Amino acid sequence: MASIKPSLAKGTRDFSPVEMDKRNHIFNTLKAIFSKYGYSEIQTPTFENLQTLTGKYGDEGDRLIFKILNSGDYLGKAPEELLSAKNSASLISHISEKALRYDLTVPFARYVVMHQNDIALPFKRFQIQPVWRADRPQRGRYREFYQCDVDVVGSESLLNEAEFILIYHEALTAFGLKDFNIKLNNRKILSGIAEVVGKPDLIVDMTVAIDKLDKIGLDGVNKELLERGFTQDDLATLEPIIALSGSNTEKIAAMKSVLSNSTVGLEGVAELEEVFAYLTKFGRADLLEYVVEVDITLARGLNYYTGCIFEVKTNEVQMGSIGGGGRYDDLTGMFGLKGLTGVGVSFGADRIYDVLNELDLFPKEGSARTKLLIVNFDSGLESFTLPLLNQLRAADIAVELYPSAVKLKKQMSYADAKQIPYVLLVGDEEVNSGELSLKNMQTGAQEKIRTAELIEKLK
Amino acid sequence: MASIKPSLAKGTRDFSPVEMDKRNHIFNTLKAIFSKYGYSEIQTPTFENLQTLTGKYGDEGDRLIFKILNSGDYLGKAPEELLSAKNSASLISHISEKALRYDLTVPFARYVVMHQNDIALPFKRFQIQPVWRADRPQRGRYREFYQCDVDVVGSESLLNEAEFILIYHEALTAFGLKDFNIKLNNRKILSGIAEVVGKPDLIVDMTVAIDKLDKIGLDGVNKELLERGFTQDDLATLEPIIALSGSNTEKIAAMKSVLSNSTVGLEGVAELEEVFAYLTKFGRADLLEYVVEVDITLARGLNYYTGCIFEVKTNEVQMGSIGGGGRYDDLTGMFGLKGLTGVGVSFGADRIYDVLNELDLFPKEGSARTKLLIVNFDSGLESFTLPLLNQLRAADIAVELYPSAVKLKKQMSYADAKQIPYVLLVGDEEVNSGELSLKNMQTGAQEKIRTAELIEKLK
Repeated sequence: MASIKPSLAKGTRDFSPVEMDKRNHIFNTLKAIFSKYGYSEIQTPTFENLQTLTGKYGDEGDRLIFKILNSGDYLGKAPEELLSAKNSASLISHISEKALRYDLTVPFARYVVMHQNDIALPFKRFQIQPVWRADRPQRGRYREFYQCDVDVVGSESLLNEAEFILIYHEALTAFGLKDFNIKLNNRKILSGIAEVVGKPDLIVDMTVAIDKLDKIGLDGVNKELLERGFTQDDLATLEPIIALSGSNTEKIAAMKSVLSNSTVGLEGVAELEEVFAYLTKFGRADLLEYVVEVDITLARGLNYYTGCIFEVKTNEVQMGSIGGGGRYDDLTGMFGLKGLTGVGVSFGADRIYDVLNELDLFPKEGSARTKLLIVNFDSGLESFTLPLLNQLRAADIAVELYPSAVKLKKQMSYADAKQIPYVLLVGDEEVNSGELSLKNMQTGAQEKIRTAELIEKLK
Repeated sequence: MASIKPSLAKGTRDFSPVEMDKRNHIFNTLKAIFSKYGYSEIQTPTFENLQTLTGKYGDEGDRLIFKILNSGDYLGKAPEELLSAKNSASLISHISEKALRYDLTVPFARYVVMHQNDIALPFKRFQIQPVWRADRPQRGRYREFYQCDVDVVGSESLLNEAEFILIYHEALTAFGLKDFNIKLNNRKILSGIAEVVGKPDLIVDMTVAIDKLDKIGLDGVNKELLERGFTQDDLATLEPIIALSGSNTEKIAAMKSVLSNSTVGLEGVAELEEVFAYLTKFGRADLLEYVVEVDITLARGLNYYTGCIFEVKTNEVQMGSIGGGGRYDDLTGMFGLKGLTGVGVSFGADRIYDVLNELDLFPKEGSARTKLLIVNFDSGLESFTLPLLNQLRAADIAVELYPSAVKLKKQMSYADAKQIPYVLLVGDEEVNSGELSLKNMQTGAQEKIRTAELIEKLK
């Protein structure tokens, strides 16, 4: 067999031990917090029937789904006219019946419908799994990446929304982030605004324009609104809303006044207030001052969300949103189960990874990393070092004996390369005296230590 | 969009919260033990370039690899003669360039070769990821399943083999298994036997026949050996080996005598003895009495392994092997890096899952499961229950408040369905007295408890 120069498939990544430590730090932190709030983990298969996924993500999404070729004689039943016409698009359904997971939402909807008789509503689940998209790979965009979704379906209570704010706050704080905003909006407020200006059909045009406030300023937004069919009168009505500023309380007061003639708009404002009331009862009114920010320019997933909309941004690093979500009213309708409301958020694990890396916030000692390397000077010493290994591991300390008695320099570079924080030097002298030599690989300092102290120190 | 009745792709599974708890128990136990022995986690992508995988698993393996259809106009460059001839096999390489991971070994080999300049040898890695095979699904055989591999490459030391025995023993004991065997053989012993009977070319035929001893008995094995080209004289030489019994020490003595004229055979026996000597130095000679068992009929992966061979079986449940592995000398040769020795074992997670289920050995309270449900009697009580929620979560207790004040019965069935062990009943009386009512869902017992005691109890 001729040897091949190995390479990775385009847009995919290997994760080394150091990277896995960091990624596991993110995933384990999230899992622990999700669990604490009563969310349970589920997993769905890597591939689904193609028809489960097709038509759920728009035409562009359909193109970006990775399809799996049928096994065996897959061309056997393929229509000859499609083959001779080289009709790639139409042939797909004849030669592929499975496809890779494109997101976690559609498989979750399928899960809920298929297991509706086994699950107790409200169903609180989280899911942390990779997804695949046949996008053109570029810096920071991969064909395989993880999504971390946490959702509850079957509960209308806004307590859930309030708890998602607590979850975001607790998780990002646990990561060591200090300055971030959880932006909040409500689809009903956007509907109310479009209603107040008498152009409910233009809600999408309106939000697309308002969404650009940060980038093009108020004049730019106004110009775009005019181009998209709004009048100068509309602009006058919209301006107090678009230019909304001040505290959340001030924003809410202003919205109430502007939306006084819109039932749906006032409903949206009332929902925000209820979420805030929950946070206050939780004893976390402080978050409303510094962390939570009402932002009516926030419009992500407008066609999907029906109530609260969330988006999270860090202010410590230049980076797009690191999380977001919202309430939806028809997750499972596509699979025939109507009227199930839900709300969920997600964490952008890859972006959070980049943020923590840039801010140097990952724990210095990877939790899963070897804490101690015992140097192997001579196999004759193994009747001392092997029981010692055993004793340390019984105390749950990750420890290795270098497996053969090679040159000290080689063993030390092994410890270095593996970022092992301590090295234990055990020679005849140490065995006889019971005083072992412990070297701190970061400071270079060396100390004499007895086994019991060593266990205490590394535990 | 017409609604589709949702279904799973053939041979795949959803994992519910209860199943995930159990699966995570297995994976987390293994990860903690692997880490303690100095093994670090890596992950490789779900799909590889097709040419990385093709030709590594034999013709049958090649057929069972799931291929991913190229994106876009995949037929554009496909040769017309293959299309018109409907030549499924030959067309594959023209319309697919990626494929799903088939095992963890080949991607690991690719990883080692691609990262050879970044990794310190010996490289000790573990990898717990799903693999996919287009097998016909049947009871206990899935198209998507997890492998758990732990390997060290770049070290010849038999200390590694001894530590794998400790790892198996520690992991299976941690799972609660009490009666299992770690069977041990050595490829060199099998070579030695074939050499002693003067038929080194028949080593595969010989081991295939010997492997059946359990099923067909000595007479059956002898019959098959005759059919496969051995003589009556050969049988006389082989019999003391095949019928080897007694303690490991007795088996080793017998092998030394039979193999006295085979250098390679004696080398194999010496390797077994060295592994045993390591275990003795570790203070675990007891394992040689009850757990480790020399078994020269063990021949798994004969074409691949070059030294020690392992296989693990439980005696508590009828089940095939739940783990196995061995030493190999040319993992990375297929990618152009020659002469790298390694040794590794794997755990059969799905079989271990079935064994633990059958023996009822999974922890009763899933570690990630909600410990307490606070009943929601009236939203007016939320100024008491929400701060309480906060306080319990700050103590790292997984707790939920039912999100709305529905009928008690519904809330209790929610706790039941989710297997939440405790329910807290908080009404006006409890709020006034500070004495909360805690119900144990398993026993039905109810007690009065103060917040501080509650935290202590659930922690």
